Amino acid sequence: MITERDLIHQLNSSSRYRHAKVLKGIGDDCAVFLGAGADGSRVNLVSTDTLMEGVHFDPKWHSPELLARKAVAVNLSDLAAMGGEPVLALLSMALPKSCETAWIEAFMASFTRTLDLYRVELAGGDTVRSAAKIALSVTIFGEAAKDKVIYRAGAKAGDLILVSNHLGDAAAGLELCRHGDQRLTAKYAGLVRAHLDPTPELALGRLLAESGQVTAMIDMSDGLATDLAHLCEQSGVGALLGKAAVPISPAMAAAARELALDPIELALTGGEDYHLLFTCAQSAGPALTTLVAERLGRPLFGVGSITAQPGLRLEAAGEFSIIDFLGFDHFS
Amino acid sequence: MITERDLIHQLNSSSRYRHAKVLKGIGDDCAVFLGAGADGSRVNLVSTDTLMEGVHFDPKWHSPELLARKAVAVNLSDLAAMGGEPVLALLSMALPKSCETAWIEAFMASFTRTLDLYRVELAGGDTVRSAAKIALSVTIFGEAAKDKVIYRAGAKAGDLILVSNHLGDAAAGLELCRHGDQRLTAKYAGLVRAHLDPTPELALGRLLAESGQVTAMIDMSDGLATDLAHLCEQSGVGALLGKAAVPISPAMAAAARELALDPIELALTGGEDYHLLFTCAQSAGPALTTLVAERLGRPLFGVGSITAQPGLRLEAAGEFSIIDFLGFDHFS
Repeated sequence: MITERDLIHQLNSSSRYRHAKVLKGIGDDCAVFLGAGADGSRVNLVSTDTLMEGVHFDPKWHSPELLARKAVAVNLSDLAAMGGEPVLALLSMALPKSCETAWIEAFMASFTRTLDLYRVELAGGDTVRSAAKIALSVTIFGEAAKDKVIYRAGAKAGDLILVSNHLGDAAAGLELCRHGDQRLTAKYAGLVRAHLDPTPELALGRLLAESGQVTAMIDMSDGLATDLAHLCEQSGVGALLGKAAVPISPAMAAAARELALDPIELALTGGEDYHLLFTCAQSAGPALTTLVAERLGRPLFGVGSITAQPGLRLEAAGEFSIIDFLGFDHFS
Repeated sequence: MITERDLIHQLNSSSRYRHAKVLKGIGDDCAVFLGAGADGSRVNLVSTDTLMEGVHFDPKWHSPELLARKAVAVNLSDLAAMGGEPVLALLSMALPKSCETAWIEAFMASFTRTLDLYRVELAGGDTVRSAAKIALSVTIFGEAAKDKVIYRAGAKAGDLILVSNHLGDAAAGLELCRHGDQRLTAKYAGLVRAHLDPTPELALGRLLAESGQVTAMIDMSDGLATDLAHLCEQSGVGALLGKAAVPISPAMAAAARELALDPIELALTGGEDYHLLFTCAQSAGPALTTLVAERLGRPLFGVGSITAQPGLRLEAAGEFSIIDFLGFDHFS
């Protein structure tokens, strides 16, 4: 079994990314770094996410390589949702005795490789023994221009609601993993990948922040219904979604049919897509869509509009229904 | 069972400490805060520690109140060891279904009360379900003047080695808890408290940093032998400890006798004292001791000196022995 000391030595001798703002990373009581904001023009951002074996991942489906990528991605996604740039990460791992050295090494290699890709320095953490299950906590720091940060609060009645990609792919992928039919997981490999290997929308988040046109933003970790409810709650508004406007990929629609699931329900309540959900004035919609198409070559999807009346409603063929606080509450 | 949403609402409406540097705490994708260092004169510090049920604590001995205090203290101790001042904290909790609402509420009330005491804002975190055991990860941010930060590296051959308090009390307290004899835990309540409720040495750390006289510092989480080895390794030096100089409290000596344990071994290899271990030039020792006595009314204990020769040696009555890398490696 690899020791914490060995792991630290290995990390220090490996080619992990070093960020110019990190004065001292692994190896002291704290990481020491230069931050933003002493002059008030830039701010620091920090976010943390915990992944628990048996709750957020299953080693049967998640290779250590993909799990490491996901642990980084879900944190970078929070930074993306504020329009920030990452600087450093901390990794806390609780590992049971049964965890093999090869697994840990594969995890760490992929973790540092993924950070490298996004130019983030692994600057510290903690490695402890767990009685039974693997627990992973990642904390990511970044920064942003103070007047460009996009909060959840800020959406106004009349604003457009947009999402950055098809919804429900990750939820369908999770259902495919749970279902366990190898023919289906092979047939819908893209959906399985959406669950196992989400992509943080850092470039899009930054572009949207720089545009100055976005009034509120959140990343979709818990599903459109829940994440939109969070955004509305923080903004003191409500929302009306158009059922026909919710973007669903052909693969997800087909997989949902085979699994006898409702694709709209997967799209509204399925978690872990990690796409961005944001709002802007109606008048800003076309220019924002053009900007994203030109700069990143990808579409945006309008899914509804913000209302002064609180609560979420869904419109389908002229009929309105209340959407309950449906999405996945991690805690219940 | 309390939901994550309820918990966040409760936290937002409670009287938790708000730090002027935190622009947005709980309730968005990231916490947003003003940092130090844009002009290069101050730096940010960050540290994270994970406490696992069944490894770092046992709910039988740790009330939620004391566990919350300890989760804060062990992190603040890392900040103390760099000479920093805390600003904000993040709390990630993984809780099994069996965890009662009363336990969570008592934990959170004590956690926020403890942060309040040290003027630290709880600015975010994550609350997730755990399959079986409680896992707690706390991340603390702080800052310090860039040229005052005390690293582990910096100790020089000939430097004095000092510690800020008696050693091994917490280790003896843990042994008393494990032993389970109520007569003994009552008799040595101070030792049990040293294990359950350590005090972070923030004021001392800051005073030592401001003195400009300390060459290297670390907090003692893993025992004198291991923590001194870390300090020496980072500094590229060795150390010679005087057995007679290792400060042992009368209570610990007596408890060790009753438990048939060696007090010197508890002092050298027992973890979780969370006192400070630091070095300074021989010539600076008396003034530093006077400074700490005058400003904080407490003694310092010289335990040995730094050597050019690597490795740790223990001197007892003119005999020298090698101290192995003895202390508690959290990971093995």
